Amino acid sequence: MLQFDNEISVLDEACPARQALNLVASKWNVLIIYAPAGGPCRFNQLQRTIGGITQKMLTQSLRQLEQDGILTRTVYPTIPPQVEYELTDLGKTLIAPLNALCNWAETYYADIERNRDEFRR
Amino acid sequence: MLQFDNEISVLDEACPARQALNLVASKWNVLIIYAPAGGPCRFNQLQRTIGGITQKMLTQSLRQLEQDGILTRTVYPTIPPQVEYELTDLGKTLIAPLNALCNWAETYYADIERNRDEFRR
Repeated sequence: MLQFDNEISVLDEACPARQALNLVASKWNVLIIYAPAGGPCRFNQLQRTIGGITQKMLTQSLRQLEQDGILTRTVYPTIPPQVEYELTDLGKTLIAPLNALCNWAETYYADIERNRDEFRR
Repeated sequence: MLQFDNEISVLDEACPARQALNLVASKWNVLIIYAPAGGPCRFNQLQRTIGGITQKMLTQSLRQLEQDGILTRTVYPTIPPQVEYELTDLGKTLIAPLNALCNWAETYYADIERNRDEFRR
């Protein structure tokens, strides 16, 4: 078992760090932060890039991530107005851990599939 | 935007890597893999360590992680039987990325709280 030598721990339900973990323990949030890691993105680009996300879910998630200070939303006064989402400095601190998580999924998915199949037999 | 030079991508809804990402894009699964990183755990130890998890959710999550090959479940023939959960070699490949994620939450939670408060004003 892990031992904890300070008060801040995601394992403690009442700790604010648990709330911060909730932010990234969401498939859509992970993908929405992962996708624009290379630079600013428009809404439609994000929707095209993140397979399976609905317009409603993308809108809600972007709003939450903007409130959390992970993304900025910039409106350019063109006709029609152009809206771009970009990672903040805080958002950029998530690139490395989320890349590691996505790379893990892309590396080990076949093992997991095999284990599930074997379990069903 | 990220560019993709191969077919395997968590951004593709139909890709099996997306299923593997789903496994870890769950708060409870993250904590259930994070908690026993130091060695085998009993059910009650896990439930005590992971604040706020219900018995039902822990049971369901452990069963799924066992089927995915992330954890092993070992029953010792004592009276009453003792059951221990331990990370498999595949499960251990998740320790580093999930530690990074939990450390991120424990490092930046105060920034996120501040951003949320400012947004409400």
